[in-house]
Parts: sequence; structure tokens; C-alpha cells
Amino acid sequence: MTSNVLDSQMLLEIKQQPMALERTIISLLARRDEIRSYARGSRAVLFFARGSSDNAAIYGRYLCEMRAGLISSSASPSVWTTYGATLDLRDVLAVAVSQSGHTEELVECVNAARHQGARTIAITNVAASPLAQAAELSLVTEAGPELAVPATKSYTSQLVALAVLAAAISRREDDFAQELAAVPAVLGEWLEHGIDVDPVVDLFVPAPGLMVAGNGLALTTANEIALKVKETCYLLAEGLSGGDLLHGPLAALDASKPALLLNGGGPTGKRLERVFERVRSIGAKVAGIGPSGSQPGYDAFIEAPSLSEELMPVALVVPGQMIAERLARRLGFDPDAPRGLSKVTQTDPA
Amino acid sequence: MTSNVLDSQMLLEIKQQPMALERTIISLLARRDEIRSYARGSRAVLFFARGSSDNAAIYGRYLCEMRAGLISSSASPSVWTTYGATLDLRDVLAVAVSQSGHTEELVECVNAARHQGARTIAITNVAASPLAQAAELSLVTEAGPELAVPATKSYTSQLVALAVLAAAISRREDDFAQELAAVPAVLGEWLEHGIDVDPVVDLFVPAPGLMVAGNGLALTTANEIALKVKETCYLLAEGLSGGDLLHGPLAALDASKPALLLNGGGPTGKRLERVFERVRSIGAKVAGIGPSGSQPGYDAFIEAPSLSEELMPVALVVPGQMIAERLARRLGFDPDAPRGLSKVTQTDPA
Repeated sequence: MTSNVLDSQMLLEIKQQPMALERTIISLLARRDEIRSYARGSRAVLFFARGSSDNAAIYGRYLCEMRAGLISSSASPSVWTTYGATLDLRDVLAVAVSQSGHTEELVECVNAARHQGARTIAITNVAASPLAQAAELSLVTEAGPELAVPATKSYTSQLVALAVLAAAISRREDDFAQELAAVPAVLGEWLEHGIDVDPVVDLFVPAPGLMVAGNGLALTTANEIALKVKETCYLLAEGLSGGDLLHGPLAALDASKPALLLNGGGPTGKRLERVFERVRSIGAKVAGIGPSGSQPGYDAFIEAPSLSEELMPVALVVPGQMIAERLARRLGFDPDAPRGLSKVTQTDPA
Repeated sequence: MTSNVLDSQMLLEIKQQPMALERTIISLLARRDEIRSYARGSRAVLFFARGSSDNAAIYGRYLCEMRAGLISSSASPSVWTTYGATLDLRDVLAVAVSQSGHTEELVECVNAARHQGARTIAITNVAASPLAQAAELSLVTEAGPELAVPATKSYTSQLVALAVLAAAISRREDDFAQELAAVPAVLGEWLEHGIDVDPVVDLFVPAPGLMVAGNGLALTTANEIALKVKETCYLLAEGLSGGDLLHGPLAALDASKPALLLNGGGPTGKRLERVFERVRSIGAKVAGIGPSGSQPGYDAFIEAPSLSEELMPVALVVPGQMIAERLARRLGFDPDAPRGLSKVTQTDPA
């Protein structure tokens, strides 16, 4: 798939991901010892983020629990900013994630967390940002300037930064860091070869909305693809785990409202089969993204490259970003500049 | 508002809430010392739940952080059930919430958490359930049998059980427990007087879907009302915080897709005004539920009784449940038996 003059900025940035990830991984893997030493003795991890960054934080949450054995939580900023709660955050690793590093409420959260005893890390794409300055340790993603309003390369750069963090504090000795380092090349080849998202886009064009579900680690991807669809296509699209889909939301699907299921391989991929059966039984169309061999029965399916389940979220989201971009254009919208949004969102201005 | 032969089971159970809450509060407040003593020395709280119970857990999470100063997290069950991760849960209070107490994955999570050193509490409506037996301390809600598939009185009973838990481990000495004890009478009077949800239902009838947003503590309510609408009306409806709505999803609203904003009073209620302005500026219709005086500009508004912000979620959800029930019937659906769902959901059967 080659660029052409009709490419949106969003699509250009989607295609820049292999380079962005490679730079970020190289830069941050070199700091593994520093990260490990800063985080040593932590008893919990607390993520502060909004939007796409908050979706990325879900990935960090799973990895920190699975690899470091630490309780990990997505914080509700209002606990600190609006309610001014005082928590005991000694030996807690507070990790704020923000592309711009300019969201004031997150800076406020990091400052409050530091005062409450937390060690503070910022993961941001802007080295000189207030967030990077507020945190004691700053991990800068090397996504380069992101001009389209919907986050793409900054989101996947955050994923790999979080993977480096998890690798640094991991209790397991394995090849995770090397596997991570190999991901950009895999993505590069995949994008070079061309990812055909049209069959999925065709399925979604007439829909008033959809749901995106992924089990386990793929929850980050489900939330992020759903957010892209909302932002660029103006469709209602909820991201959720396969388990949560079965606990009620399933009823809202039908022949007009399809589901996109994300198969991250591994044991959660197996469990996705049951979700597929239930969605199918309610009469909804089902599109999928996943490893080779998992597509039987799907109305449209995009085959993902073979990566370990822990790294699949970095790949699974890419066709999702492309689906959102293409679907937006098919519906007549400009994916680069969604209505009502700007690049830096101030949730709670002073 | 009096019952009549046309009332759905769901509406009957909505109206049983004052009694259900009163029984639950009396029964559990009496055990405050026991709960406090069991939880003493905890350094974090970890909630295990699905569906409506998971929405209730959000309330528990805010209250435990705000009142007890403890990091609180909504766990991803798959970390324990699918990935078999080993966490250090010493001095962690693991709280599983489930109406039926029969969801196998939650029993598995409680057993795993106990093995990893956690103190374990079950909040369930069924005293003899496997979940109640698996946990060391069992807090039984007194909602009575819930026959409609959509949870209503079991959800609010969980809220008050979580409020008792927070009161028990609170670092603050105040009147929270007494205020809690007064809530059932306030709800009883409100329901007796009649809550007119028709103006909101009229607004939602032609919509292909909607969003429900609440700031801070009201996030539990936003998620729960959205779930009711999905389950009973088969509409796409996402619940989210006001902050998250502004970070992207806002773009999906327009003249055809309205928002329901929940004003819990207090400082977050003030911040909701900005959310209202942004939603309005994108051209969407806006319905609201909140305290007297917060309705100017809304297309439809339901006035809630005056409660402290910490207790507002127990009240705010009630008209939301009634909106879902009424809207379902207006759309020709049976709110008691949503398609594709049953009362006990086994997410991950063995």
C-alpha cells in the first residue's frame, strides 16, 4: 500500500508507526536499568490518562499485573482533582500517560500523587511538556509530531513504552524485550504488503453503530478502535471485553448493528469463540481481526501477523485505525479533524 | 405512582428499592465493627465483578479512595482466570460483587486472591451462593428475589452495601452512616410522589442510540443506566465520565443522538456545566437528572431529591431504570426478558 496525494494525514501517521515504534523502543529499552532501579520496591501501579492514552494504560495495567505481580489501577482523575482525596501512595508507582503532556488535570494528578508519596513517571510524546517536568522520571515516546486529531502512532508508541516499563519491572526472565524489539519490522512488512480493510468497511457502512470486543489484553485494542470510530465516523461504538459483552450489552446487537471481535491469540483467543457464537446467535454480523486460522464463520476477517499474545495489541489496532479512517471517508467525513475536538483536550480547566 | 396490572416485573422491582435498601442497610450497618476489624491494615482494595455489579463496584472504588485513602481497582478477571497471574495480594482487600453469587469466574477469582494473600469479601444477594462460601466475609444484600433479568434493586442494594463498607473503613468521623440510613425514606417518598420520565423517553424514542455521562461518583450511574438501555431497549448506549466524553466520544453525538447527563451535585455538578455546553454546541439534544436548579437549558430534566454527593448515585439511577423500562415498552420490547440474556451469566465456563 503506497501513499498517494489523497491520503489523509491520519493514514500517513498510521503508516509511520513502524518507524515511530522502532525509535521509541530503541530509546527506551536502553533505559531499562534506570527504570527498574527507580521502580524497585513498588507495591502497586496507578495509571493517570484520558482518551487514547487511557486505552493504552489498560495495556500497561495488564502487563504490570501479569509480569510484575503488582496490583495496577486506572485512576479516576476526579478523585484527586475534584474531590482532593488524600491517599497513601507510598511505594506506589504513578504513571501518567499523555501524548501532548499538556493536559492540566493530569499534571495536577501527578503533583498530588508525588505529594502523597508516589514515585512518578510520565509517558509523553513531548519532552518539554509540563507533564514530563512534573514527573520524576520521564519516558518520551518518539512518535514524532502527530498532526491528525485522532491519535494513532502516539497510541502505539505508548503501548511499546508501557511494554518497556513492564519488561523493566518484570519478575520473569524471558525474551519479552527481544520480541518487542522485533515488532516494528513485523508491522512494517504487514503495512508494506497492504492490509485490505474494505470487506470490514463495507460491512460497517450501513450500520448506525457497532461494538468492538476483545478478551484480556485485547481490551485496550477494543476500546481504542471504538474510540477511533466514534471520533472519525461519528458512529456510536463501544469497546468492551468479551466477558462484559455477554453480561448485557449483547442484547443491543442485531442484524443492523455488527460486532468487531479482536482475537489476540493464546487462551483468550480460544475464549473468544464463545463470544463469537453468542453474537452470531443474536443475528449480528461479525467482523474479526486475528491470527491466521481463527476466521471461520466471520463475515469479514483481517488476518494479523503472528506475535505473542502479550504483543498482539500493538498489531491488532493497526487495521482498526485503517477501518476508522476509510469508513470516515466513505461516510463523507474528514478523519483528520473530527467535529467538536481539538488535539489537546483540557478536561478541567482551572 | 401506583402499581397496576400492566406493570412489568422490572418496574415492580424498581419500586421495591426503598424496602430492599432499608433491609440491607439495617442488616449491614449492624456489622460495621466486624467489617472494620476484618479490613484493618489493608493497603488497597480490589473489586471483582461483571455487568451491573461491576458498575456498582465503581461506586465502591471512589468511596474507598475518598473515605479510606486506599488505592482501589476494578480487577480484570482474566488476569486471574485466563492468564493465571500471581500477584502479591497481602494486605489487599478483595471484594467480589455479584447478585447471584453463582458466576464461576468470580468464585475462581476469589479463590485465587485468597491464595495470593488477600482478605476476601463477597457482596451478594444469595447467602448460600458459592461466592458467599468462597469469601471469608460475606455481606448479604437483602434485595429479595430479583426476577426481571435487568438488575435494578440488586444494583442499588450493592451500592448501599458498598457504602457501609466504606463507612466501616473510613478515616473520617462524620455522619455518613446516618445519612445513608435516611436514603430509603427519601427514595420512598420520591417514588410515591411519582417520577415523570416521559419527557426524557419522548426525546429518546426516535434515537438510534445515546450516551450517558456523569462526573466523578456519578460514573457508576452513567454506566448502569447505559447498560439498562442496552439490555432492555436494544439501543447502543455508552456510559462514560464527563471528562472522557470530551476526550473524543463527543464527536459521535449529533441532532439524532442525544446525551443524558447526570448531575450528582457538589463540585462535579459544577464541572458538568462545561460538558453540557460542549454537548449542546455539537447540536445534540440533552436530557438531565440532577438536583433542583441545575436544569436550565436542558431539553428534558428530572429533578432528583437532595442528598449529599456521596449518596446521590443511589438516587440518580432510579429514574434511569424507569426510563429504560418505559422506553423498552414504547419500542415494543419486554423489559423483563431481554433477548439473548439470562439471569446468571457464565462468562467463562470451565
